Amino acid sequence: MLKVLKFGGTSVGTLDRIQNVAEIIKKIKNDGHDVIAVVSAMSGETNKLIEYAHTFAKKPTSHELDMLLSSGERVTSALLSIALNEQGYIATSMSGREAGIVTDNSHTKARIEHIDTKNMTYAIKEGKVVIVAGFQGVTKDGRISTLGRGGSDLTAVAIAGAIKADVCEIYTDVDGIYTTDPRIEPKAKKLDMISYDEMLELASLGAKVLQNRSVEMAKKLNVNLVSRSSFTPEVEGTLITKEENIMEKPLVSGIALDRNQIRVGMYKVRDIPGIAATIFTALASADINVDMIVQTVAVDGRTDLDFTIPTDDLETCEGVMKIFEEDVENIDYNEDVCKVSVVGVGMKSHTGVAAKAFSAMAKENINIRIISTSEIKISMIISQKYAELAVRSLHDAYNLDK
Amino acid sequence: MLKVLKFGGTSVGTLDRIQNVAEIIKKIKNDGHDVIAVVSAMSGETNKLIEYAHTFAKKPTSHELDMLLSSGERVTSALLSIALNEQGYIATSMSGREAGIVTDNSHTKARIEHIDTKNMTYAIKEGKVVIVAGFQGVTKDGRISTLGRGGSDLTAVAIAGAIKADVCEIYTDVDGIYTTDPRIEPKAKKLDMISYDEMLELASLGAKVLQNRSVEMAKKLNVNLVSRSSFTPEVEGTLITKEENIMEKPLVSGIALDRNQIRVGMYKVRDIPGIAATIFTALASADINVDMIVQTVAVDGRTDLDFTIPTDDLETCEGVMKIFEEDVENIDYNEDVCKVSVVGVGMKSHTGVAAKAFSAMAKENINIRIISTSEIKISMIISQKYAELAVRSLHDAYNLDK
Repeated sequence: MLKVLKFGGTSVGTLDRIQNVAEIIKKIKNDGHDVIAVVSAMSGETNKLIEYAHTFAKKPTSHELDMLLSSGERVTSALLSIALNEQGYIATSMSGREAGIVTDNSHTKARIEHIDTKNMTYAIKEGKVVIVAGFQGVTKDGRISTLGRGGSDLTAVAIAGAIKADVCEIYTDVDGIYTTDPRIEPKAKKLDMISYDEMLELASLGAKVLQNRSVEMAKKLNVNLVSRSSFTPEVEGTLITKEENIMEKPLVSGIALDRNQIRVGMYKVRDIPGIAATIFTALASADINVDMIVQTVAVDGRTDLDFTIPTDDLETCEGVMKIFEEDVENIDYNEDVCKVSVVGVGMKSHTGVAAKAFSAMAKENINIRIISTSEIKISMIISQKYAELAVRSLHDAYNLDK
Repeated sequence: MLKVLKFGGTSVGTLDRIQNVAEIIKKIKNDGHDVIAVVSAMSGETNKLIEYAHTFAKKPTSHELDMLLSSGERVTSALLSIALNEQGYIATSMSGREAGIVTDNSHTKARIEHIDTKNMTYAIKEGKVVIVAGFQGVTKDGRISTLGRGGSDLTAVAIAGAIKADVCEIYTDVDGIYTTDPRIEPKAKKLDMISYDEMLELASLGAKVLQNRSVEMAKKLNVNLVSRSSFTPEVEGTLITKEENIMEKPLVSGIALDRNQIRVGMYKVRDIPGIAATIFTALASADINVDMIVQTVAVDGRTDLDFTIPTDDLETCEGVMKIFEEDVENIDYNEDVCKVSVVGVGMKSHTGVAAKAFSAMAKENINIRIISTSEIKISMIISQKYAELAVRSLHDAYNLDK
């Protein structure tokens, strides 16, 4: 098998940890696999460099930031290669440029446009372990670029896609994706498999582990993604793959909790044609990611509009709402809410899944403010104070600890 | 004027020092000059990275070391560019690769083979300040290479030569080349100008400031080199240039002291034809840099051979000498010696310069063990204990404090 591995900042955070990563790679090599490993900067390094840059400028020029920040991953790739070479394995480090990663010109948040796998393929054919400095590429003009936070994951997934690797293993300090946050529900269980779409919906469960941008790319490139831990490499992680690959589809895969929500209530909005469209277009133009929307039936030519936005967008939202002052009687912002979601591909083909969620809430006297459902998800906005209780009740209702 | 500036590790050793370098560059820019600045890694960084590498391997693989060590200069180049950009100057950082520096394949001690100045020339034409990460280049195969210690100086000199800069200013923490070591002779004076050849002979005076490799390259490429300080940028440094450019040639430019010498005495060597050639060929093959040689006239088919070697080569020399055990009655090694040298292009056209040196020694009752002279240098091997006295006497004899 050709495996692309990715080791994040904590996995290579110290010289000891780098040695540990070398051991993991050795074992995989000894099992007869070919390995391309993508590495992040040692944890803390990138922040240190950003801090340095900020002593000179509030907003450092982006190309210079790229030159600066791309250095950390290079250090790790060189050190890991040295560790492997010393033990008789032939490893070669490659910068993003040498690995053939070509990006657009958006310095500090570039998108990978193309990967020329020539150098990597050649090295693999020679029996070498390839260690790629993650998070970076080169623009078509030949200038260094970086991919933004989470960029090393993207590097790994993109390489796995381009070189048609059998699997892309993302190593962090967490050993996989759980049915829910184990800090809230200690009975949470690690999942063996989960589909891309479920993973995307369960983002809050994987937030520390996998960024949506990487999961989306894995889905697009059809890359089998594994989330596992470099601290307990003997534990199999969670495979994130396409739905067709999952034989036994569970009804519900997991319960997600998102506390980063504000509920915006617009009361007695003038019910003229297209008013909702106008409001949500204005919010979208301001880059506000509106999540759940409920519109109640118009009474006396007036209607109520409820929706949620991410906490960070509150101020921007208040600005946008000024445009609609004359069209609405009252607007209130409720920060004391959270979103719990039940996610599972199985609900596509089963009925009663939503009903079970609502009755679980009712049993605990938890009032549901907004409900929204999709093919594979039921989301509910509830009061913050019931967050943990709701998660545990739902986890229990669907027997996720079994 | 187009100026190439080079700032070493102590000149960019802290964020404050980098800001200070930005001020120096701004002033030069404001004076109407174009600037290419070559920077080293922040002092301590390279050693830290080497230490990291050595935790994994006694002898880290050389390509990986290059990937590792080249990162430090990139960080400095980015930070300095950020500092300049913030103040309204347009600066752009370039890695060795981006600056067009192509080297041979000798990783960790590569030689610059060619510089493609296209990117730098274009940026200069656009009015930008170019900040080049020193010490590094790229092989013809596209792999990162480094030039070894002192490599940033070489980068600067090579760029100045390739781009036909008017001057190459090497900034360190010393404000130029002195007539002798001011710690030995407080009356030592800073030189305004000195020829390449004198500088090479005075290596010990410039050792901390300019490596011979850089001076030799400057001579070859006809680059006007200036040694000056980033700590006192208002002080003009010392111009190192070709002899023809120096109008008033002083009789003597400086007095150098080299304590790193061992005198090897071979007594009663069999005086067969070619024996000296055989001995010195054997020493050269062992990479021992034999300096001064004196052979006394043969008596009874036997001759005495005296020569000096660098202290570090003692052990190797002893090994080589075993070959000649049968050809010589006795060999002794005297570590208690040093070499004082009087250097000046003026002595080419003046007589009596050497005589003055010898009488200065005689006046102080300093016994001269070996003498050797070249067109522009008189060197004497004397006892270590007279080192400082000899330097001060010679400095005085040639009125170097005037």
